[in-house]
Amino acid sequence: MVLHQMPRWSARLFRAPPGWRRTCVLGPSMGSRWLPDRWGMYSPLVCRGYSSASGSPEVMLTCKRYPVQRLPFSTVSEKDLAAFESIIPGRVITDPDQVEACNVDWLRSVRGCSKVLLRPQTSEEVSHILRHCHERNLAVNPQGGNTGLVGGSVPVFDEIILSTALMNKVISFHNVSGILVCQAGCVLEELSRYVQEQDFIMPLDLGAKGSCHIGGNVSTNAGGLRFLRYGSLRGTVLGLEVVLANGTILNCLTSLRKDNTGYDLKQLFIGSEGTLGIITTVSILCPPRPQAVNVAFLGCPGFAEVLQTFTTCKGMLGEVLSAFEFMDAECMRLVRQHLHLAIPVQESPFYALVETSGSSVGHDAEKLGSFLEQVLDSGLVTDGTVATDQRKVQTLWALRERITEALSHDGYVFKYDISLPVERLYDLVIDLRTRLGPLAKHVVGYGHLGDGNLHLNVTAEAFSEGLLSSLEPYVYTWTAEQQGSVSAEHGLGFKKRHVLGYSKPPVAVQLMQQLKLLLDPKGILNPYKTLPAQD
Amino acid sequence: MVLHQMPRWSARLFRAPPGWRRTCVLGPSMGSRWLPDRWGMYSPLVCRGYSSASGSPEVMLTCKRYPVQRLPFSTVSEKDLAAFESIIPGRVITDPDQVEACNVDWLRSVRGCSKVLLRPQTSEEVSHILRHCHERNLAVNPQGGNTGLVGGSVPVFDEIILSTALMNKVISFHNVSGILVCQAGCVLEELSRYVQEQDFIMPLDLGAKGSCHIGGNVSTNAGGLRFLRYGSLRGTVLGLEVVLANGTILNCLTSLRKDNTGYDLKQLFIGSEGTLGIITTVSILCPPRPQAVNVAFLGCPGFAEVLQTFTTCKGMLGEVLSAFEFMDAECMRLVRQHLHLAIPVQESPFYALVETSGSSVGHDAEKLGSFLEQVLDSGLVTDGTVATDQRKVQTLWALRERITEALSHDGYVFKYDISLPVERLYDLVIDLRTRLGPLAKHVVGYGHLGDGNLHLNVTAEAFSEGLLSSLEPYVYTWTAEQQGSVSAEHGLGFKKRHVLGYSKPPVAVQLMQQLKLLLDPKGILNPYKTLPAQD
Repeated sequence: MVLHQMPRWSARLFRAPPGWRRTCVLGPSMGSRWLPDRWGMYSPLVCRGYSSASGSPEVMLTCKRYPVQRLPFSTVSEKDLAAFESIIPGRVITDPDQVEACNVDWLRSVRGCSKVLLRPQTSEEVSHILRHCHERNLAVNPQGGNTGLVGGSVPVFDEIILSTALMNKVISFHNVSGILVCQAGCVLEELSRYVQEQDFIMPLDLGAKGSCHIGGNVSTNAGGLRFLRYGSLRGTVLGLEVVLANGTILNCLTSLRKDNTGYDLKQLFIGSEGTLGIITTVSILCPPRPQAVNVAFLGCPGFAEVLQTFTTCKGMLGEVLSAFEFMDAECMRLVRQHLHLAIPVQESPFYALVETSGSSVGHDAEKLGSFLEQVLDSGLVTDGTVATDQRKVQTLWALRERITEALSHDGYVFKYDISLPVERLYDLVIDLRTRLGPLAKHVVGYGHLGDGNLHLNVTAEAFSEGLLSSLEPYVYTWTAEQQGSVSAEHGLGFKKRHVLGYSKPPVAVQLMQQLKLLLDPKGILNPYKTLPAQD
Repeated sequence: MVLHQMPRWSARLFRAPPGWRRTCVLGPSMGSRWLPDRWGMYSPLVCRGYSSASGSPEVMLTCKRYPVQRLPFSTVSEKDLAAFESIIPGRVITDPDQVEACNVDWLRSVRGCSKVLLRPQTSEEVSHILRHCHERNLAVNPQGGNTGLVGGSVPVFDEIILSTALMNKVISFHNVSGILVCQAGCVLEELSRYVQEQDFIMPLDLGAKGSCHIGGNVSTNAGGLRFLRYGSLRGTVLGLEVVLANGTILNCLTSLRKDNTGYDLKQLFIGSEGTLGIITTVSILCPPRPQAVNVAFLGCPGFAEVLQTFTTCKGMLGEVLSAFEFMDAECMRLVRQHLHLAIPVQESPFYALVETSGSSVGHDAEKLGSFLEQVLDSGLVTDGTVATDQRKVQTLWALRERITEALSHDGYVFKYDISLPVERLYDLVIDLRTRLGPLAKHVVGYGHLGDGNLHLNVTAEAFSEGLLSSLEPYVYTWTAEQQGSVSAEHGLGFKKRHVLGYSKPPVAVQLMQQLKLLLDPKGILNPYKTLPAQD
């Protein structure tokens, strides 16, 4: 495992937008990486009205942009720094430039003003650090790859940043059961490579895999591209070691598929975004590596036909279906317009990307062939193309995965990540087009149809309060009326914590607050995140 | 949905042992059922030294057999009964015969002395009942199908029995997503039948499916026969409605595959055996029904070969593999001896049962054929037979599923259900044979190899303290040394709560106790269960 400090996206999945400096660094086991130009980087979410002394756009401090009050935590003293230095000699970072990179999220939408970055290597070091912070009432912001989309991974004020970057060792891998045990700071892509060499795959895959840490994936209960096939981390994570707020090490690091001894405590830490404990070690079940991967890119005449294609697909592809994504015509027009990618099928109101992963090349091709014949004959699909070789598979996936990038070229983007009952998945897009009219440049919908997960994006020439107030709370209310989730896979972090109530009843929110109080009575772990501020 | 009060086992999975009265009751949607002869029923765990007035063996009261003290709960008064009657008119049962059936577990190993059985139909009724019990400090024992194996489903003293039997309605089923929402008291087999009519299957299957309630399955985090393929209920259960100890209804009943809004509270109630809340409604994801099911029954020359067969199988059968069970020669000898079943392959030191479930009859047969050729050619398997038609599939499954029954004919049975690292799975069986020598009649091992789950059984002519003290805590210590679980899928209930510490560290046990205190401060929910008694 090699240390990487800067956000690193899989080259296949993320192309540098204008303003990024492309720097390709190759190591013996690392592949290519993108290192962002620290100040020159452009993001549609950058706060344009706020500039640094140098004149380049700088991210406005979260505490200035948002109405949030610092809680009465202590401030880091020289004595604290000395204590940290004695726990992790040489790994207490106070150099402003180094700390600054960890103060800003990768979307450049939120920015803390921490003065200290700690880089422990072991759970015991994390334990000693937290024991000190707990005694001294110092707030701590755990940070993995800093690739979160809701401002959960950077400080809001001056919280100490505790990075898992140096906790990047594989502890064990069992090549019969496929059980991997590793430290929280292992980068997902490196773990993928590691287990693939032994004919397994990681049970999750994400666009941010080149940077994100497995500990962060678990802390945010990451979904991603393999969710439809391999399910939630709540099923595939077998064990965790966690350091609690007071420094106690909680060892739930079993590597057993079945264990019904008492309450399953690890579940408390999956998806709680570092607010209940810091995950230091993960035990996770890896599925066998598929021998064959096929991708079909299809054009559909309407959303009803997309849904019927999905149903047909589930029936006919069954166990080899590994992804079902949909995109509307607007998405694909933007991809063509801004990225000059060719859409390999005739223009259609909707498109679907279907992936199969299986253990037999011939069988999978045959299953896919029968399915395609069926959906073409019945008119559910009007045109389509299939890829079997890896290069073409990647080309087709790029049409789906580069939508985010295409949108960022279109102007300011308002982003929503919601779960809805599958048959209502596209209604909100249609509804918003009517509601917003000329206020919006484009209203587009795409996402993981197989998981009922819609990525709804609205673009405009520039940020507009008027547009925002037409969108919010409307989008959240609409979602709540359908019993949907206002955050399907991104979590709540800092930016969405106030919308929790749209998806959870007051009784649930109250119980969450009680759990927080039980596990972190002083509230030092990732404060201002996940749960709404209490009056 | 139809109400069933008596334990009901799938006829295929459980044949009546001598002393059972076979009563076949057929209803329009019910199939055949076994109704046990209440007093004549024989169980190897019955307390032989204690007899009822009639002379038939009766189960000794738990409070007499075990060193357990009644906690200072109130006793049910006439006023309480009147209050319950006003909440659920006509469904407050105090008839001793009716209540008695719910006081004894189906293994007839534990027996409470409750005087009241409540049968609510709705969550609101459960809420009103618990509010009253909480105010009055009355202890409550939630009960589903009463098929648990660790004494978790019956009272220890005079706890009020709250049965979910009348909460047996399907609320909704979505035939695109496969999401089923139903009340907690729905019987698993009936739900299976219901979703199969719409070309889906339940994500879990158990021997006790004819009686067990889905709410009980979720409360105990049941594993079972489909675990290898469809994973844990922690992944497939999408939402729960739960009534908390004080009567508050906690609605986490989303039907979304992805929802990352706040802490996933439903996980607290999965596997906590009714000690933190009573599950009243379940939302669960059902996989599509496979088109083809094949079963192979194989003979292997050693346990190392069983393991290699499993590895080969995972690679070659991949996504269609749905079960991998193993049995030792001793098991099969007992099945042949006591049940007169023919073993369809030549006698071998070990046997494996491999099941495939897929969407294509031809493809699955081809995959299985290649796999069998490979394992036979390489000598991993020395003999085998394959079944594709349903009747023969069932015949082969019976060899595995009827082991429990065969054991019960062999004498008194000491039962252990443990998880171990797969390569050590059989070592304990070998070890115990040497350790116990002539003390034991038979020491046998079988189980869900694919899940690392060993069912270890030791038979003797009769219960013996000497044998017990050779087994315990030895088995638990041995398991703990391998970082195994002392309860893989059965839970802890009443009978195993004291061995929690063999699989969980003190920090974890303490946190569990804090969670119990937070959610049920008076401790009225299923007391004396799951967590060890506190000094």
